[in-house]
Amino acid sequence: MGGSLARALRQAGMVGEIVGCGRDAEHLAKAKALDVIDRYSTDVAEAISGADLIVVAVPMQAMETVFRAMQGYIDKQAVMTDVGSVKGSAVAAAKRVFGEVPENYIPGHPIAGTEKNGVEASFAELFQERRVIMTPLENSRVDAIDKVRAMWQACGAEVVTMGVEHHDEVLAATSHLPHMLAYALVDTLARMDDSQEIFSYAAGGFRDFTRIASSHPQMWHDICLANQAALKKVLHRFHDDLQLLIDAIDNGDSEYLKITFTRAKLARDTYVS
Amino acid sequence: MGGSLARALRQAGMVGEIVGCGRDAEHLAKAKALDVIDRYSTDVAEAISGADLIVVAVPMQAMETVFRAMQGYIDKQAVMTDVGSVKGSAVAAAKRVFGEVPENYIPGHPIAGTEKNGVEASFAELFQERRVIMTPLENSRVDAIDKVRAMWQACGAEVVTMGVEHHDEVLAATSHLPHMLAYALVDTLARMDDSQEIFSYAAGGFRDFTRIASSHPQMWHDICLANQAALKKVLHRFHDDLQLLIDAIDNGDSEYLKITFTRAKLARDTYVS
Repeated sequence: MGGSLARALRQAGMVGEIVGCGRDAEHLAKAKALDVIDRYSTDVAEAISGADLIVVAVPMQAMETVFRAMQGYIDKQAVMTDVGSVKGSAVAAAKRVFGEVPENYIPGHPIAGTEKNGVEASFAELFQERRVIMTPLENSRVDAIDKVRAMWQACGAEVVTMGVEHHDEVLAATSHLPHMLAYALVDTLARMDDSQEIFSYAAGGFRDFTRIASSHPQMWHDICLANQAALKKVLHRFHDDLQLLIDAIDNGDSEYLKITFTRAKLARDTYVS
Repeated sequence: MGGSLARALRQAGMVGEIVGCGRDAEHLAKAKALDVIDRYSTDVAEAISGADLIVVAVPMQAMETVFRAMQGYIDKQAVMTDVGSVKGSAVAAAKRVFGEVPENYIPGHPIAGTEKNGVEASFAELFQERRVIMTPLENSRVDAIDKVRAMWQACGAEVVTMGVEHHDEVLAATSHLPHMLAYALVDTLARMDDSQEIFSYAAGGFRDFTRIASSHPQMWHDICLANQAALKKVLHRFHDDLQLLIDAIDNGDSEYLKITFTRAKLARDTYVS
């Protein structure tokens, strides 16, 4: 995500110097070799020194640690944002570290990404025609909101604003729940006796359906726990609905199946382009 | 499916005359206008008269009716096959109609298809590098098996053979179960209060995951009921596994989440190319 953002901003001519920061120097060296970043440091304080705009692009569970490493080194005029999939826990981490959410920190979440990781998989067009959700808070500085918005718009994204809690509910339904189902399905099949043979008959539909199960396990582990409350709610709801579908198949309830499949097809064809 | 097969066989130069049959004359006329078929009839007996090779490509629940309409009109030297997603119920329908499974009927199932329907969506390359499963029976004529195999190979498919029951178990896991989950997920979201807003934040992962929920409701209604036994088994298994995942999220069981996601990613990356 960080790599794609760097590429997009450079392509848009929106940046001076891009400084990469991470734990893995080899990874950062690769990013520099690919000209995705201009220089790098594994030291957070050094990396953010003098920065106008700081983008935290780390797994949810690392967010608090990174905020802590940043504390005291953020320039007065700097603007901060992040790309985390759960906004409630990002805001909570900021509160724990800074006492309150800094007025120059605008939580953000680009609804974009692939199941691939690493700077080699990054590309400047990732955010084109995608949505970015910002969840500014009451004390957020207007100029900081504008700066983060302008950054994403320069990457070709449409920027929308919503409340922290609402963001986490919407994403639990459209992103976190499907990821759970994809992981669970592949895992159920992987633990069957003849799993290798079963997978060998997987066709295009299965490939598409399970693509998100190739996503980064640590990242999704973090998201699950960071968005526990909202994810639990939709998971329980789905689990109950699936029970009704199972009952219908058990009982040969033709009507229930037709109505459910028809309603689902209509919703998808209408709302998911 | 019938349209794509006709196109592929014509492209391969494997056929003389292609006769289309169906209930909808308008649909058949469109197929003729597109040169997918040479002529057509809505009368089964008339359509199959003099045919060397009869391919039954209808929803599972229509299979028995079609077999019944064919009875007495199948040429002695003709070979029959079908493209149904469930082989147990196709075989059972044949038994009910013909007393026993005709020795010239070789049940088949191409593991190919899209969520789209109709002759306009058909294309000759659908079966290229796809697998076709044949489930011949003990009394199946060897020349009939060879003819059906040759037909699919001419379309660019790899033909494999397996038992009827095993086919239905494998397909329940790799195809029918994912379709149930996609339909159930879209339906769960569609019935939420703010469903339209929720869908508007769906990204690429959601689009891929739910593509199969745009499949034909009647066809999937039929498949559910035709493969009830095998589908029930994997659905119950998945439902139990999902409960364990829900418990792990409820309890913040970090280890369980990491192990499950990692195992699923490994299986997908290894076996689903």
